[in-house]
Amino acid sequence: MRISELSKRANVPLTAVKYYQREGLLPEGMRSAPNQVDYGDAHVQRVRLIRALLQTGGLSIAATKAVVAALDVPGAPLAETFEVAQHAMSTPRTTESTPSEESRDRIVAITRSHGWHISVENPGISAAARALDGLLAIRFDPPDSYLGAYADAAATVAAADLRALDDRGTLDEVAELMVVGTVLGDPLFAGLRRLAHEDATHTRPPTSDTNRAQS
Amino acid sequence: MRISELSKRANVPLTAVKYYQREGLLPEGMRSAPNQVDYGDAHVQRVRLIRALLQTGGLSIAATKAVVAALDVPGAPLAETFEVAQHAMSTPRTTESTPSEESRDRIVAITRSHGWHISVENPGISAAARALDGLLAIRFDPPDSYLGAYADAAATVAAADLRALDDRGTLDEVAELMVVGTVLGDPLFAGLRRLAHEDATHTRPPTSDTNRAQS
Repeated sequence: MRISELSKRANVPLTAVKYYQREGLLPEGMRSAPNQVDYGDAHVQRVRLIRALLQTGGLSIAATKAVVAALDVPGAPLAETFEVAQHAMSTPRTTESTPSEESRDRIVAITRSHGWHISVENPGISAAARALDGLLAIRFDPPDSYLGAYADAAATVAAADLRALDDRGTLDEVAELMVVGTVLGDPLFAGLRRLAHEDATHTRPPTSDTNRAQS
Repeated sequence: MRISELSKRANVPLTAVKYYQREGLLPEGMRSAPNQVDYGDAHVQRVRLIRALLQTGGLSIAATKAVVAALDVPGAPLAETFEVAQHAMSTPRTTESTPSEESRDRIVAITRSHGWHISVENPGISAAARALDGLLAIRFDPPDSYLGAYADAAATVAAADLRALDDRGTLDEVAELMVVGTVLGDPLFAGLRRLAHEDATHTRPPTSDTNRAQS
């Protein structure tokens, strides 16, 4: 198919498709005639994937390129593909500060108390520790039960993420879901958390509001 | 204190503090002499908060301004403060597409099956639906058990978020945690999810790998 058809079938504007191509995110099409390049179904999928990573996942062009490149290594070990996705997602959007040692230690302690096997290089430690630093900045020192609830929730989601991989037929499809699921699981959870907040606020017993000290 | 002391005590570079001031994010200090402005402890807290919202939360200047303004309305109803935080966080970082009606319906259906009371204006619906669209783009149509696990996890976290509010003394502190917790809970969870992924990959029974079809 021509590039206009590719744009239509992926439901992504033509200017965006040309942009992806210029940035080296999209594999070249087959040259079928001196002035004609032909694209296949794999290109349609790839364009949709790039769109989702950039827009919904909020990845940078560089991070998207790293993710897409990882998917294109034939027969790459799954654990490696997962690692690339993890690091791509933790590519800072702005210049991010180094989290405090205390917060890093606290996050590692919570994972230990949950019996998790993790490596100190996992970028999740810094990401969680930076968030913890932000909470401490407003003098909220979360109790273990608070961080424990977050870790419980993370384990629930991670188990569902892993189970979903079993239904994918080919290793390529497994790798694709690993990467895209790692990126898009965050906004999926964030959206549902907003909804759960609304529900929890409504169903909250009114006593806890009247008991609270007035400022 | 002078602005240089404010910068030191908040542990935020002086150029950043001046930038917050220029952008109208920081309340003015007291003019104590013709050439001297005096800042108090409230300014230190505010500078730390702005830093956390911008850097770790990834909010835009405009969204941060909305959040900070909501905190400064004396005696604002809590539900309203929560709403501002929710909308600020869903301010799109890039131009975001409208999610498909099918995905919106699917997200609403999951909340209904969990018995949640939510309004159709909650920005969480679009955020989650857009992520779902991205998953569908790689031909992963998540089963109800997958979305259900995410909703369960969101409910666990939301309950912990609400419980944390009870320990805050004043209404100002409650509002502050509502807003900052809404924003920073996302990266806290995302970091822990990366760690849970690593653990789940390690503890995964090796049989599921050998059973999988090769590409």
